[in-house]
Amino acid sequence: MRAGALLEKALAGDRRAVSRLLSYIEDESEQIEGVLDAIYCRAGKAHVIGVTGVPGAGKSTLIARLAAEMRLNNKTIAILAIDPSSALSGGAILGDRVRMSKLSADPGVYIRSMASRGRQGGLARTTLEAVDLLDAAGFDVIIVETVGVGQDEFDIWYAAHTTVVVSVPGLGDAVQSIKAGLLEMADIHVVNKADKPDAERTVHDLTGMLGAVARTHDAAWQVPVVATSAESGLGVADLAARLEAHRSFLNDHGGSTQRAKFPERRVWRAVEEMAVRRVRERMQDGAIAALCEKVANREMSPRDAAGVLVGELKD
Amino acid sequence: MRAGALLEKALAGDRRAVSRLLSYIEDESEQIEGVLDAIYCRAGKAHVIGVTGVPGAGKSTLIARLAAEMRLNNKTIAILAIDPSSALSGGAILGDRVRMSKLSADPGVYIRSMASRGRQGGLARTTLEAVDLLDAAGFDVIIVETVGVGQDEFDIWYAAHTTVVVSVPGLGDAVQSIKAGLLEMADIHVVNKADKPDAERTVHDLTGMLGAVARTHDAAWQVPVVATSAESGLGVADLAARLEAHRSFLNDHGGSTQRAKFPERRVWRAVEEMAVRRVRERMQDGAIAALCEKVANREMSPRDAAGVLVGELKD
Repeated sequence: MRAGALLEKALAGDRRAVSRLLSYIEDESEQIEGVLDAIYCRAGKAHVIGVTGVPGAGKSTLIARLAAEMRLNNKTIAILAIDPSSALSGGAILGDRVRMSKLSADPGVYIRSMASRGRQGGLARTTLEAVDLLDAAGFDVIIVETVGVGQDEFDIWYAAHTTVVVSVPGLGDAVQSIKAGLLEMADIHVVNKADKPDAERTVHDLTGMLGAVARTHDAAWQVPVVATSAESGLGVADLAARLEAHRSFLNDHGGSTQRAKFPERRVWRAVEEMAVRRVRERMQDGAIAALCEKVANREMSPRDAAGVLVGELKD
Repeated sequence: MRAGALLEKALAGDRRAVSRLLSYIEDESEQIEGVLDAIYCRAGKAHVIGVTGVPGAGKSTLIARLAAEMRLNNKTIAILAIDPSSALSGGAILGDRVRMSKLSADPGVYIRSMASRGRQGGLARTTLEAVDLLDAAGFDVIIVETVGVGQDEFDIWYAAHTTVVVSVPGLGDAVQSIKAGLLEMADIHVVNKADKPDAERTVHDLTGMLGAVARTHDAAWQVPVVATSAESGLGVADLAARLEAHRSFLNDHGGSTQRAKFPERRVWRAVEEMAVRRVRERMQDGAIAALCEKVANREMSPRDAAGVLVGELKD
């Protein structure tokens, strides 16, 4: 089936069509090219929630609990688990999906793992395109789970309406948390595994640190620290309420300041990708390789080589 | 003093000139523009070691120990600590530098913290330019410390000759480590805090997992798992020897396969940056803002807007 026909079905709520289109996006397939613009223009209604934090914080279990909680309000939910392992090994870890399997029997919930990076290092773009598709397909809430504290996190911060940072008790000291840059990013902090002995101290430390830093975006929002236990369900209803409150805050304040910068970022990223694609189309592979060889031998700088390549974009 | 004169001094071993130039690089100052190409072409001799791992793994202390160990062989060492916190808060955490302060009295060691991201999100570029400068300035070994497991890590993997991934006992289970994509990236694995009770199990688990995954680069290299205690110094001499062995391996095998891809990546990144810069130079700010506004309102996709902008590059 062509992408156009699949998109029709996806917009009408057909999950298999959504899955097929997500695979096209994940593979950076040419099939998807013609419908990406339509998908983008149909999106914009869902509440996009980014969930991040160090590996082992129990994010997947927490998200499963959270989704179940949100289902009580009849919201439809898409969960997109970004899996960075595939970049190098080619293999996806299915553990999270297994943990979420009870949830996946619910027709109001759609769960998908996606490799974090396609052929061209397209983490940000393919993730954003996937969010657009799920949004256009009519899901009320889209939860994007990412691992780690590097660039991925910053990207999701720009893509999500609400960023949730999950910590656990006893993972390094307070200074380390600040160092990772997670503190200022969060709209909501969660301390998971709150049944652990030093959970209270972690909540206390985090709250203290939040008071000490100046928030650089949406300063009127009071960032809550929510203690949860994904295992027992403790605090999950509170978390759902806080998410709802943040959504209302954004509606009342004309959207988030971070989110406002997002379309521009995305335009420039598209400019970068288009420039590279057009240079590749116009220039012989051999000529490009010869330039790169000179750069490898330190006879020419990367910028000098780029000057030659960008020159090819002139008509 | 002009950047050209500073570079002369830096190449002659003047540390203050190195510091000034690094500040220009960090700030993406126009001052540095004219000498970046010269710096790049003078670099290429140092052993660049990337050290990464989750926050709280004790990387800074370990690096200080490792540098002291390498000093016994009279090598000069530059340590570049990439600090992602500055991106959002504007403030750098000085804890690591304080911890390294004993080392900083040694004239054969140069230590520098650097914000991970300049005005234009230039993490990768400014870090690489800093490495080039330290390399051109004649340091035998350059150790780049990064935090987290996201994009930064992948960038450093492409930039470094040898990637060291530091784990600690008890940080989540084995599957989580794989998920972060760290397993395959490492040329050397370190289990720090090896005096902790479950250190042996972590070494054992890690070794087992290494046997189970197919290495996608430099398959002939046997990835060692080195147990260290940065506090006591245990295992640090072993780590230094393994680093030396990996350097020899690369020399014997005509360099690393990962490293071989690096100049090309860097050329394309420079193409991206140059395309954006030229579009901004040629187009009125108001016209760009109007396009972004349409994208924000979902009337136009980011790629359609990019098509208009890249069209401006034609003469």
